[in-house]
Amino acid sequence: MKFELQATDKQSKARAGKLTTAHGEIETPIFMPVGTVASVKAVHQPELVNDVKAEIILGNTYHLYLRPGTETLQAAGGLHKFMNWERPILTDSGGFQVYSLDDISKITEQGVKFKSHIDGSTHLFTPENVMDVQRQIGADIIMAFDECTPYPCDVQYAKEAMDRTHRWLDRCIRRFDETDPLYGYDQTLFPIVQGSVYPELRKQSAEYIAQTDREGYAIGGLSVGEPHEDMYEMSELVCDILPKDKPRYLMGVGTPANILENIALGVDMFDCVMPARNGRNGQIFTSEGIMNIKNAKWAKDFSPLDPNGDSFVDSIYSKAYVRHLFQANEYLGRQIASLHNLRFYLWLVKQARQKIQEGTFAEWKNVMVPKLQNRL
Amino acid sequence: MKFELQATDKQSKARAGKLTTAHGEIETPIFMPVGTVASVKAVHQPELVNDVKAEIILGNTYHLYLRPGTETLQAAGGLHKFMNWERPILTDSGGFQVYSLDDISKITEQGVKFKSHIDGSTHLFTPENVMDVQRQIGADIIMAFDECTPYPCDVQYAKEAMDRTHRWLDRCIRRFDETDPLYGYDQTLFPIVQGSVYPELRKQSAEYIAQTDREGYAIGGLSVGEPHEDMYEMSELVCDILPKDKPRYLMGVGTPANILENIALGVDMFDCVMPARNGRNGQIFTSEGIMNIKNAKWAKDFSPLDPNGDSFVDSIYSKAYVRHLFQANEYLGRQIASLHNLRFYLWLVKQARQKIQEGTFAEWKNVMVPKLQNRL
Repeated sequence: MKFELQATDKQSKARAGKLTTAHGEIETPIFMPVGTVASVKAVHQPELVNDVKAEIILGNTYHLYLRPGTETLQAAGGLHKFMNWERPILTDSGGFQVYSLDDISKITEQGVKFKSHIDGSTHLFTPENVMDVQRQIGADIIMAFDECTPYPCDVQYAKEAMDRTHRWLDRCIRRFDETDPLYGYDQTLFPIVQGSVYPELRKQSAEYIAQTDREGYAIGGLSVGEPHEDMYEMSELVCDILPKDKPRYLMGVGTPANILENIALGVDMFDCVMPARNGRNGQIFTSEGIMNIKNAKWAKDFSPLDPNGDSFVDSIYSKAYVRHLFQANEYLGRQIASLHNLRFYLWLVKQARQKIQEGTFAEWKNVMVPKLQNRL
Repeated sequence: MKFELQATDKQSKARAGKLTTAHGEIETPIFMPVGTVASVKAVHQPELVNDVKAEIILGNTYHLYLRPGTETLQAAGGLHKFMNWERPILTDSGGFQVYSLDDISKITEQGVKFKSHIDGSTHLFTPENVMDVQRQIGADIIMAFDECTPYPCDVQYAKEAMDRTHRWLDRCIRRFDETDPLYGYDQTLFPIVQGSVYPELRKQSAEYIAQTDREGYAIGGLSVGEPHEDMYEMSELVCDILPKDKPRYLMGVGTPANILENIALGVDMFDCVMPARNGRNGQIFTSEGIMNIKNAKWAKDFSPLDPNGDSFVDSIYSKAYVRHLFQANEYLGRQIASLHNLRFYLWLVKQARQKIQEGTFAEWKNVMVPKLQNRL
């Protein structure tokens, strides 16, 4: 993998770059739609390419490991071939999902024991086998096995979890470096910074992670319920420590405003279930603000879903029609909202990129952030 | 509306024709995807045009009347504009749905009183107001308000219902002829033949309906649970009586084999929820037979969903992948199956048309019918 820093904003820490993977280039800043179990929910693969214009998608190791399972994925020749997605893929390490299973997971130095949410069967994730599973899935970018702390989290536990994350990272790196990719193309491993909302821990973690000298780094453990100000503070602190010539991925973030603010702090990559999940519940993100399309006020508004949207769903379907589809609980409503919101997120990061390249990012961001939070 | 009979098969009663409506031409025999509440479930409108290659779709008056309601549809300028569908639409009369509400509908000479399945509110459908509602929806082809008898049905009740259907038809025609379309384009009214599985009643009904001299005719009350042989007998008997120069629409039919058999008897138009509904449940219709895509046997079959299918879903998604999507209860599985099955139905009627024009329909049908019923 190769990362090229192409432009830096003068009034902020925003960056534009280009990431080259075995499955093609990614222009940063970028948003990665989440394809949990080998499908970005309610969106066809050609729509992701042609309409959303996604450059990379994310898969969830926990879900893929349970279903379809690594045996099927290996038989298919990896996740790209299984789902017929030819562009880059990033997989998380499964950690985040396992901790969210809460009382059915048990953390030891060895790894995490958990029960499948599907059939209750018991499984163990370790730094080593999570590397193996991600080799079998075959994503271009794979994530270290970390412990993502909840919010709030006392400083003792945050430190304990961070130290364990660092020890696990060493094991991940060892296993990753002594194994080969299975499908003939390179994979790269991103370590993850932890440390909850404690500046001293975040600093320690960022420094520890930076010295591993990998091809990119992630910031985990944010967007788990902490105030936005804490998120931004941690994000800035970590970005200032991480090397400038490597991409930075802020995991699980966030609202459109969160994304612009974090781009301003030096983040290059984002993923979040929000555009698709909130879309399926009728929340539409637009350049003018946020709409609840189920509201009665749209019942006879026959204007396009989003006059500024550039995907086909924006121009051919009206607000009144999409509202009706949600009222009648029709699949198509969820398809339209998912596709629109994902396209909107991709449009937003591409706009940010253009503004960075033009040197006008900071002013543009300051105009956009309040607009993006309007309730329409 | 204009109907041109273009070819007739020599070994059967199959016909190829062309129906010209205000929203474009329809080449018969044709299958009409069902778009119950202004959406063909899980399929985007551009996919219906470009991938399914649907030439006309069906809307359900009962559902559209309740939601979004005629006021919204009128404000939009009719159903075509509301859902952004520029090709022809046919609406049923609402009768079929109302009778399926069973104990909450009450039939009198005036019409049918029923309760909304949404909020329990009471409504009355009469031959007159059903014409008005269909004017407000604005379909190109609208259906007479009839009484669709269940199966089995004793001969007394079948005759009573048929006679009432004929009296209601007279009222429909009167109302239709004394009102104008609301959106500047022509609509046409199709009467419906009833009579359950009684040849004598079907004959009477077909003769009654034929003398109304409308632009097309429908056969109702079949595919309600009767043996296929009874369906074919009634269909043939009615087609032999209906005028040759008008299109014949067999309502709610059916399996791929049913469609070919009825084409052979002289039917020109079909609709059925089966391809989309069964698709959403994992049943895939192909030119080689029927697959339950949820079966374990497909778990590692990475061949295309349907090697003979010509829509994008057939070539880019494998059986194993689609099975996985159904296992994981992913929206995309239902989207793929719906689109595939609808395209398959359209492909089937277009093949039939070509064979009729080439003079080889009967032999082709005899090869296809057993294949279509294979369990793969």
